Amino acid sequence: MAVRSVERAKAAGGGSRPAERVAQRVEDQSPKRVSEPAVEGVTETLATTENDTRLLSFDELRAALRAVGEERYHHKHPFHLMMHEGRLSRGQLQVWALNRYYYQSIIPIKDSIILSRRPDPVFRRAWRKRVVDHDGDTTSEGGIKRWLKLAEATGLNANQVRSGRGILPATRFAVNEYLNIVRNRSLLEAVASSLTELFSRDLISLRMEKLRQHYPWLAGGLDYFEARLTQAPEDAKFAVNYVHDHAKTRAEQELAIQALRDKCDILWAQLDALYFAYVQPGWPPPGAFRIEAS
Amino acid sequence: MAVRSVERAKAAGGGSRPAERVAQRVEDQSPKRVSEPAVEGVTETLATTENDTRLLSFDELRAALRAVGEERYHHKHPFHLMMHEGRLSRGQLQVWALNRYYYQSIIPIKDSIILSRRPDPVFRRAWRKRVVDHDGDTTSEGGIKRWLKLAEATGLNANQVRSGRGILPATRFAVNEYLNIVRNRSLLEAVASSLTELFSRDLISLRMEKLRQHYPWLAGGLDYFEARLTQAPEDAKFAVNYVHDHAKTRAEQELAIQALRDKCDILWAQLDALYFAYVQPGWPPPGAFRIEAS
Repeated sequence: MAVRSVERAKAAGGGSRPAERVAQRVEDQSPKRVSEPAVEGVTETLATTENDTRLLSFDELRAALRAVGEERYHHKHPFHLMMHEGRLSRGQLQVWALNRYYYQSIIPIKDSIILSRRPDPVFRRAWRKRVVDHDGDTTSEGGIKRWLKLAEATGLNANQVRSGRGILPATRFAVNEYLNIVRNRSLLEAVASSLTELFSRDLISLRMEKLRQHYPWLAGGLDYFEARLTQAPEDAKFAVNYVHDHAKTRAEQELAIQALRDKCDILWAQLDALYFAYVQPGWPPPGAFRIEAS
Repeated sequence: MAVRSVERAKAAGGGSRPAERVAQRVEDQSPKRVSEPAVEGVTETLATTENDTRLLSFDELRAALRAVGEERYHHKHPFHLMMHEGRLSRGQLQVWALNRYYYQSIIPIKDSIILSRRPDPVFRRAWRKRVVDHDGDTTSEGGIKRWLKLAEATGLNANQVRSGRGILPATRFAVNEYLNIVRNRSLLEAVASSLTELFSRDLISLRMEKLRQHYPWLAGGLDYFEARLTQAPEDAKFAVNYVHDHAKTRAEQELAIQALRDKCDILWAQLDALYFAYVQPGWPPPGAFRIEAS
């Protein structure tokens, strides 16, 4: 089990900053060879502790989770960097809002799967908050409705967004993998995969500032982010405690860390697909939305 | 049901040739707006027959399936065009073989899921051939082993390929969606999703010719394709007959056609991800294989 988790950590491999990626841009014609992936950062730490079966303390576990985010969370993705520098067109913000809606729409579904897997009503009462946060109740419209308002602020029609017409197949595949993870892995890993919420507050704060600065016409559509500023840290706190309390061996801790790494990949892949289709080379696949010059 | 299938056909939308895509390349800075997806080709045909509930004849059904391939099968993907024009480097062929191995490796798993869903032993005896074709038996090494030989011919180590280390997360997400389809949709749709085999013979013939011409050092690794030249048409013939015999309504026929469209998207998305990571802009995500200048 320990070997398996370390193997998976290796499989997930190292990472690099977008700036380094730009520097490493592949030239089309020159002969190449493929090497083993660079194993750096947190994965290096894991790889070198292959025989270390010592249980991580709460602080060590939290630090290991944070190191995953530092390395792989999508705050460093080139698409987000363009967004924060004001370099996205309105059309590019539209396809971002449209595709990301599919992700938003499955969040309460994945949380309902998690609810369905835990016999303990105390856990379910706590986790249920997430479904309410997204689906709403009599006092709150909920995150899905708020994301629709953001999409409308970009100029999209809400029905069109809700229908999912024109989203990238790659968006659907990446998001559905999130459902696969919470269905098919241990409940510990399912809970751990939510821990990107450890990192989302900082990204959302920055994003709200930059959206207001560069795209003032979007300012009326930011309620979703406003709500997440308080919701996400509450959820992350609960989930970190859960992972700490329920990962009884180092191998289980490593599986939880890997689940977070895989979740980061799901977020990252969505932005890769947007960038490919709508920035460079700018080739939306058959059936996807086309941005037209206004 | 009919409305649902037409809706899904619309969702899948139109398509365009790579050449058109290049022409439609998105410029980063200009303001854009998002329009409804262009609905053309076969989807146009379906959309305009929304109220047509007439069952398609065998020939009409086959023609509708072939039209899906003409529009969305990955024979027209820019990555394949580069391959056939001799413009891929050895490293780019390596990452193609490496990532595609993951697809190859799940084929007998998805066929085993299909086997598990059909109580009829006559069906299972026929479909079992596919598992044997890929996993091998005492007389044949099987397709997975043959693909490993291809990967080795590109210069990769077989164990490294088998481990899946360094494959693109987007490859895993797209391929896992194929498993989701055969698990979660009707058996009719699961069978129909295999029908890209209607188109694979022509692509494989062309590919073998072009690989021998442009990359003669690969010639020893082409057994996989040689075997598929006869296996794929046999399988496609069985599956087309099955879909014709078991789709009892036009709505079911449309669901089968949509399953083939979705399968085409799965193949296309794998090449989009390869192109993004290793051609242009050439940004492999954290943990993925890096092609190094030799």
